[in-house]
Amino acid sequence: MQHDTIHIGLAGYGTVGSGLARILQNNREWIRKRLGKELHLKKILVQDPNKARRHVPPPDTALTMDMEDLVADPDIDIVVELIGGLDTAYSLITRSLSSGKSVVTANKALLAERGPELFNLAAKNGLGLFYEASVAGGIPIVQTLKESLAGNRIKSLTGILNGTANFILSEMTSRCIPFSQALAKAQELGYAEADPALDVEGLDAAHKLTVLIRLAHGQDYPLSKLPVQGISGTDPYDIIRARDFGYRIKLIAQVKEKSGALQAGVFPALVPDDHMLAKVDGPFNAILLEGNAVGPIMLYGQGAGDLPTGSAVLADIMSLVTRRTDYNNTGFLDAELYPAKILQPELTVSKHYFRFSVQDRPGVLSIISGIMGERNISIAQVVQKQEPDGNTVPVVFLTHAAQLQDVRAALQEIDQLSFIKAPTVHYSIL
Amino acid sequence: MQHDTIHIGLAGYGTVGSGLARILQNNREWIRKRLGKELHLKKILVQDPNKARRHVPPPDTALTMDMEDLVADPDIDIVVELIGGLDTAYSLITRSLSSGKSVVTANKALLAERGPELFNLAAKNGLGLFYEASVAGGIPIVQTLKESLAGNRIKSLTGILNGTANFILSEMTSRCIPFSQALAKAQELGYAEADPALDVEGLDAAHKLTVLIRLAHGQDYPLSKLPVQGISGTDPYDIIRARDFGYRIKLIAQVKEKSGALQAGVFPALVPDDHMLAKVDGPFNAILLEGNAVGPIMLYGQGAGDLPTGSAVLADIMSLVTRRTDYNNTGFLDAELYPAKILQPELTVSKHYFRFSVQDRPGVLSIISGIMGERNISIAQVVQKQEPDGNTVPVVFLTHAAQLQDVRAALQEIDQLSFIKAPTVHYSIL
Repeated sequence: MQHDTIHIGLAGYGTVGSGLARILQNNREWIRKRLGKELHLKKILVQDPNKARRHVPPPDTALTMDMEDLVADPDIDIVVELIGGLDTAYSLITRSLSSGKSVVTANKALLAERGPELFNLAAKNGLGLFYEASVAGGIPIVQTLKESLAGNRIKSLTGILNGTANFILSEMTSRCIPFSQALAKAQELGYAEADPALDVEGLDAAHKLTVLIRLAHGQDYPLSKLPVQGISGTDPYDIIRARDFGYRIKLIAQVKEKSGALQAGVFPALVPDDHMLAKVDGPFNAILLEGNAVGPIMLYGQGAGDLPTGSAVLADIMSLVTRRTDYNNTGFLDAELYPAKILQPELTVSKHYFRFSVQDRPGVLSIISGIMGERNISIAQVVQKQEPDGNTVPVVFLTHAAQLQDVRAALQEIDQLSFIKAPTVHYSIL
Repeated sequence: MQHDTIHIGLAGYGTVGSGLARILQNNREWIRKRLGKELHLKKILVQDPNKARRHVPPPDTALTMDMEDLVADPDIDIVVELIGGLDTAYSLITRSLSSGKSVVTANKALLAERGPELFNLAAKNGLGLFYEASVAGGIPIVQTLKESLAGNRIKSLTGILNGTANFILSEMTSRCIPFSQALAKAQELGYAEADPALDVEGLDAAHKLTVLIRLAHGQDYPLSKLPVQGISGTDPYDIIRARDFGYRIKLIAQVKEKSGALQAGVFPALVPDDHMLAKVDGPFNAILLEGNAVGPIMLYGQGAGDLPTGSAVLADIMSLVTRRTDYNNTGFLDAELYPAKILQPELTVSKHYFRFSVQDRPGVLSIISGIMGERNISIAQVVQKQEPDGNTVPVVFLTHAAQLQDVRAALQEIDQLSFIKAPTVHYSIL
């Protein structure tokens, strides 16, 4: 992009879109100093041009309801896709790439579902398809994996990738309130959508993890094969018990490489208090990486919001402008990704937290620990605190490292015992 | 760099140089997958080719004692400068750039002293001069400031940039030992040089801060004008008192922008326990940034060492190879940096920690607080704990926000009082 003004077509003028527009206005002089060029928001694709907006678009920006106005405009160099969802966004991105325009997107769902196809199309046309804003808001994790750590084998990546879920868990922890109440507060503050399922059930974090696995490993891990567990079932009782033991419960997205295969998943887990991720509270995100050269690295920042995510979109736009041709969309020479070699989650080894709801009678602990012993699950700590709930008591076990398949088999057997009064609560420990 | 093998000339085969060689060997296949090219370590400039080395250079790498062998070799595409120091390194870098070779360097001292001149030379020759490894080891802070946050105005940058000093302070804190003993342990573990002055007196952190100020603000802040204070005078007594108040003492490098002017310095400071930087222990580094779009961002990792720093050197090499021409060395359009508009450190406003050594007699607290009151220094907390040291007692004051020039004037007046038995100890609070 050699000309002096870069024209941008923006699709979507919600939180992030209007954040981007504000940054472009506020930091205009600064951007010119960095780039030597003007970034001009030429057109914005919206559903209703007459809608009242808190942040009015700049006067020299046209609003349109027709995607064709962006795609077919020969002046537009870069299309920024911030409408989200799968179908319209897919259509916009493919048509933009086919019309010679590079694309910046924040759409993790679409990238997770159809990323490889889109990267192939971008490569075929020699164009950029950048997506820093799709994972962890303003945190430069895409750039870091694609470039700064490109020479490293990434042994593990552990992230808090969903600010909504993290805010809810932080509220539950600091104020000892149930999930529903923390969710209501998150919705009130605008951290959670009216339909919070994508965030609290872990799917949003799974989309982001899929994108990061590609960047770290050059492999395509199908979303459908990723074990995903959310936080809607998390009981404040376990948050309190975990805290007593020196842990916080966090929604974790993780991938580990073990002898060339990948072990990945999204799950709530107990994080030790002295772990760097334990300090990541409220709507913040963080990613802790372990590279075979760089060692441990952590990146921390706001995972969402108008200006932080707008900042990531702007970084991609500026990067597209300075690079001109060498786009390096995937961080790998071939746009074609290899199918991931998947290590079955059942083989994961970690410490575990169990809460059994047992009838308070002699011998039950011995039976439970007997079954665990048969499955090679060795017990590190046990706490039984009588609660005023009839004759059922919660008994919490912390184990030493044990394989998930052994844990599942033991729990299945234990949960069928007559003195077990509710399904056992189970968390992995980081 | 269009050819299939990129030839590298490495100057210096110490910790980082041999780390780089090991990464190039171990991750060779992986790098090829990312880059589509082979990185070949063609020659290494050493002082003594016959010296016994723990990590033997690869068999197809030639050792030389003559700089000309690197500079004049037409095959060599990139020169990596890891010899440190000012004169030879300067000569190597300028001669390499004048011979059409891009340069990767970890030399923060040289960049701090003569960076602008070197960046001008690189720009004149259309070559890359990359320096990710010069600040904070493997942490991608240079890349992040140059690219990911390029569209942000950086309102503040606060870093723990010297792993040696941080290790010493961590040891003093966790084991309540004096500076000399912690330094001896750091030297034993290889974290500190035989002459530790550069690290413990803050100059190394000042070099790095100078480099970061350029990247964040596009301004040249002369090293000679940067207030620099080290940690060799830090007394474990103050570490313990600070901990009682809920603070850790850390060596901080900081720059803040206030109405277009820069306020910068390196100094030991009290960091609140719940601050993200308080958790950065041992030889780790971290940089906390506040951008006007992205908000707060923190990057954390190992600040030194063979493989982490080697990883940063490799990132620069790979980046030079993929970019071919658009090097963006400084992150600003003009290689020419503006002289920094400097806000006098005396105008800095922060909270403060004082330890007065007073003769234990009635009325002294009232005189001290009277002088502070006259200078608009308002007191937040006072702790006096009698110690078995004759009739002198340490009295610790924590203040509300006050201007440094008022603090200095008050301390100068107070230290002349007859009942003050030793110079007052003073720290800023983050």
